[in-house]
Formats: sequence, C-alpha cells, structure tokens
Amino acid sequence: MTLLKNDIFLKALLKQNIDRTPVWMMRQAGRYLPEYRQVREQAGSFMKLCTNPELACEVTLQPLRRFAFDAAILFSDILTIPDAMGLGLGFTEGEGPKFERPLRTAEDIKKLPIPDPVIELGYVIDAVSLIRKNLQGSVPLIGFSGSPWTLATYMIEGGSSKSFQKVKGLMYNDPALMHILLDKLAQSVASYLNAQIRAGAQAVMLFDTWGGMLASEDYAEFSLYYAKQVRDLLITEYDGQRIPTILFTKGGGLWLESMADSGYDALGLDWQTDIAKARARVGGKVALQGNMDPVALYANPDVITEKVKTVLQKYGQGSGHVFNLGHGILPDINPEHVKAMVDAVHRYSPAYHQ
Amino acid sequence: MTLLKNDIFLKALLKQNIDRTPVWMMRQAGRYLPEYRQVREQAGSFMKLCTNPELACEVTLQPLRRFAFDAAILFSDILTIPDAMGLGLGFTEGEGPKFERPLRTAEDIKKLPIPDPVIELGYVIDAVSLIRKNLQGSVPLIGFSGSPWTLATYMIEGGSSKSFQKVKGLMYNDPALMHILLDKLAQSVASYLNAQIRAGAQAVMLFDTWGGMLASEDYAEFSLYYAKQVRDLLITEYDGQRIPTILFTKGGGLWLESMADSGYDALGLDWQTDIAKARARVGGKVALQGNMDPVALYANPDVITEKVKTVLQKYGQGSGHVFNLGHGILPDINPEHVKAMVDAVHRYSPAYHQ
Repeated sequence: MTLLKNDIFLKALLKQNIDRTPVWMMRQAGRYLPEYRQVREQAGSFMKLCTNPELACEVTLQPLRRFAFDAAILFSDILTIPDAMGLGLGFTEGEGPKFERPLRTAEDIKKLPIPDPVIELGYVIDAVSLIRKNLQGSVPLIGFSGSPWTLATYMIEGGSSKSFQKVKGLMYNDPALMHILLDKLAQSVASYLNAQIRAGAQAVMLFDTWGGMLASEDYAEFSLYYAKQVRDLLITEYDGQRIPTILFTKGGGLWLESMADSGYDALGLDWQTDIAKARARVGGKVALQGNMDPVALYANPDVITEKVKTVLQKYGQGSGHVFNLGHGILPDINPEHVKAMVDAVHRYSPAYHQ
Repeated sequence: MTLLKNDIFLKALLKQNIDRTPVWMMRQAGRYLPEYRQVREQAGSFMKLCTNPELACEVTLQPLRRFAFDAAILFSDILTIPDAMGLGLGFTEGEGPKFERPLRTAEDIKKLPIPDPVIELGYVIDAVSLIRKNLQGSVPLIGFSGSPWTLATYMIEGGSSKSFQKVKGLMYNDPALMHILLDKLAQSVASYLNAQIRAGAQAVMLFDTWGGMLASEDYAEFSLYYAKQVRDLLITEYDGQRIPTILFTKGGGLWLESMADSGYDALGLDWQTDIAKARARVGGKVALQGNMDPVALYANPDVITEKVKTVLQKYGQGSGHVFNLGHGILPDINPEHVKAMVDAVHRYSPAYHQ
C-alpha cells in the first residue's frame, strides 16, 4: 500500500502529536457542489450513483480537488445494508428514503439474512477499493455505516419518521424481538465495515442519526449496546495499521460518558454540545470530532472564521480534535463558504499544537 | 377567589410537601380526544377555536372530565403574540403554522409594535378568566407563551423549519438586529403572561420549543438570556398567591445548570434527559417537570405503567416533581392509555412522599 502523505486525521483520532487540526466535513461529497449535481444527474438517480463504483469514486474525490480536506469519506448511503437484506431501498424526491418492503411482522425480522458484504454489497466494496487506489495516498479514506438502531428505525418505519412510533412501539411492546433485529444488524454492520477495511478504508465511522430520539435508558439498551457490539467485532488493525473508529450519535450530547466507554477511539459531536465541556467530561478517553453548526455556513465568511476560531479555542490545546460540522453540510451552501471554514482551520489551529 | 381544592401542582413547583406527585400532560386538550375533534370541527378552523373564549374554555376543560389531572392549561397557540404584532397567523392542513407577513427586513423588525395583551390578545385573556371561573377551584390553571427565541424562529422563517437557516442567518450576520427583535419579544411575552396572571393563571410556563437547535453559546446569548429577561419582568405574586414559573427548552438537557440559574421555579425536561441525573445537576435549585417519552403512550397499558414507575423512581424521594410527558401528546394516542399513565402516577407516587 502507498504510504500516506497526510495522516494527521488518523493521528488526531489516536491523540498522537500533529502540527495542526485536521478537517473534513460530513456530506462533503454532496449537492452543494455543482460538479456533484452534474454526476448525480448523469447517473439518473441517487441509487444509481451509489451503486456505480466509478461514479461513487468520482463524487468522493470531487471535494478534495476544491478544498484542503484531510480525509475522504466513501460516498454511499447509510441504508445499503437493509437494501442488501431485501427491503428494497428507493428514494423519492423531497421525501427521502423509502423501503418497498418494510419490516411488518415477527416473521419478517426472524427471516432476515445477514448479508455477505463482498457479494451483496460488492458495489460498495468495489467503490472503496477504487477510491483508495485513486487517492494515491494523499489522505486517508473513511468507511462508514448506519448504526444498528438507526437502520432499525428506517426498516420498521419504512422511511424517515418524526415520532418513530412504529419502531418504539416494537421496542416497548416486544423488546425481545427488537433485540433479535438489533443483534442481526450489529453483526451485519460489523461485517460490512470489516469488508470496507479490507478493501481500503483506513478509519470507520458509525452514524447513529436517530439514537438521540431515545430516552436515556432506551439509548443505553437499544442503541449504544449495539454500537459497542459492532465495535467489539471490528478489525482493529489491517495491513499493519491501526484502524481508528468514530461513533456519532446526533443528539447524544447527554450520554458522552457512556459513549466514551464503548471502545471507539473518537466521538462525533453535534453542534449543540459544548466541545470544551465534552472534552472535560470524556476525560481523555476518546478524541472528539466536530462541531460547528452546519447552518453557520450560511453566514458571511468573516463570521464563519470567527465560528471556527470559537470551536478550536473551546477544544483547546493538544491533539485529539478533528474539525468538522456538527451534522452534514446543507445542500444550498455556497462552496466559497466551505473554503472560508477550511482556510480558518488551517490558519488558526497550529497555535493549539505547539 | 375560590380556594383551590387541589393545589399539589403548585406545591410541587415550589418544592413544598405533598402526598403524591401531581400529573398533567402537555397538549392534554387536543386531537387525541374525540370530544376535542368535535369542537374543533364545529369551530371551523384551529384559529377560530383559539380566538373563541367559550370554545377555548370548553376544550381546556375536556381532559379534566376524563382524567384526574392536577392542572388545567389554557388552550391556545404559542404564536398568538406574533399574530397580534401583525404577522397574520394561519394554519395549513398538515403543514402547521404559516405567517402571511414574515419578517423580511430590518425595517420590519424595527417597526414591530409591543402588543397590549388586554386589547390585542383580549380573546386569550377572556379565555383565561372564563376557564378560571369554570374550574371552580378544582385545580390550578397554567398560562403560557412561546419563548422569545422560539417566536423569533417562526416570525423569520415564516413557519416551521428544519434547519432554521433564515433565523440563524440573521443571528450570525446581524446579531444586533436579532437582539432588537428578541428584546421586543421578551417585553411582549412578559406583558402577555402578566395579563394572563391578572386574569387568573396560577402558574405560567414558557415553551422554548426550538432553543435546542442552537449551539450552546448561541443558546445562552439568544434564547436563555431572553427567557431570563421575561422571568425578571413577571409578577411573582398575585392576589396574595405566589405564581410559580416553568421554563421548558426542548433539547435543552445539556444546559440545565444555567437554566436552573435563570430564576424559574421549575424546568421542563424532554424525554431524552435522565431525570435522576437532572435532579443531581440542578442541585435542588428548581423543581422538575416531565419526562416520559410521549411515544411510550403507544405501548400497552402494562408497559406504560412500568415507564411511569421508572420516571417516578428516577426522580426519587420528596417533592419537586411534576409528572408529565417529555413533549406534547401525539394526536392518535388511545385515551385509555392516558388513563393508564395517570392511574399509575396516582398509584405509585405516594411511596415517594412519605
């Protein structure tokens, strides 16, 4: 494998010394870029873009041509696993993901297969290999998956939800069946992430987008428990390299202490969480990734610069911080504003690494 | 004024000794009740229901005829103040509130009047008087308002929002103008709540529905600061009675310490916040209201009973807890499930008041 030219992202996750704070952005390959919209149109649909390794590779690399990001992240969707399990993923314009065959009965759950990622998610694994090759060691590649809980919400609700009444209904009324589903998902997610690692992912991130909708005791039992199970099943080293892991629960700021005990190297923070307080609370157990308000990218570049400085100053001195937004970039952000953010991290972070 | 027959709700807010935990429910007058849907249909529109004191009184009293709640809450909308300021409130089916004339320019903000509630919100004040009279001292009446920040979000976005880009855009790019708006809103909210108190409200609650969408430093500057300003302007006693105050920031669980220092008697908790940890964090400064997951009301009555027991047990021994949901009841809940919740509070809470 090619030697990495820029490994500060991986080093920050492992709290090793670096000379500035690394930066990347959730959904950095996305609709805010005109070149992305062009490829997306060419592909014909979002799913066709996800399932075509060449196009997925192309859009993954696009933001790196514009901005001095310190990591690439696989372009894919968090719902590829349920699709491979046979639920039939589709995207409706403006309404988000929809499953043709959501889980409706105990039988539906019990007969769910655990997909072999190399066979049933080959298009993702091929994309990972291709991206890794095309990166030519410039920056590391992040693999990812949705968390078991988050996948379960979509699989039971059939799509996005506001109140999560179906999935919580199952959780409350038949917790044993819910655990069967989450256990299958944890195995599937771990096997999927391990296949991404073997194909070239140099770090992996678990997106628990909807863990924050749970009561704290339900979060521990139905979300974090399975995130930890995934972690326990992951390859920790590949090709002689440590593979750092990141857990991101949107809305999980209340539970950072228990998240920090779950075996991940780093926690993603949403923008509501004060990163200074978060650092004090996790007490050096994990690195932190985040957490500028994504909506701040609508502000003037001068304001963006100030917001970046605030986040850097709040994290403070030393390694263990990866700069990012607190959630994915919104589709109508001006790319010039992203440049202002990246430039500010490059300019103002070295002071915190002396 | 008639002597209150049941004052445990007010006593709990002031942490005075009582013999069981009081219970009421956010949106207890609402669509889950068939008798509410009937009156709503008769009124013709949601706004007509809000602006008709007799009908507002009727729907306020409906849940008390079914359930042994310990408080009534004025039936109204959080957006009455911006409507009185001239923005033109309407409700579109399925899409929620819409303003005909949202704030677009600095001039729009600078010329905003501070409404005289007795004149411009007379329909609310009349409803308060009428409800208080009709309650005949059975339980206390809660008045309420949206918080300055929450009102500002709707006034600038023009309605509900997912990312709050317009209101945050103003906040980032022209904070001075945002402060002018929030200052006017704080004055308007305080004057509105004081008018409700003079008309008969025996406790007041500030609903900061969208404070939880802010970064922590922005929450302090643009939401909590003005909630405190409202509190400072409120009547603390009326007709010889202390008027307890409740502050509820949905998604505010990370900021309870600073909220507890803002002068309110009690904090509302959303369901994500662990009430045992919350009690330890606020250290006796305030009472706590909440916080069962509203979606738990879809569960079987036996499960609901267990969930109630968990919340009671987590809060633990002594006064200072008002049982409630962590957010408003959802419209398609079976009223029998509400009964299971209320019964469980009545049955299992006395053990915590011995």
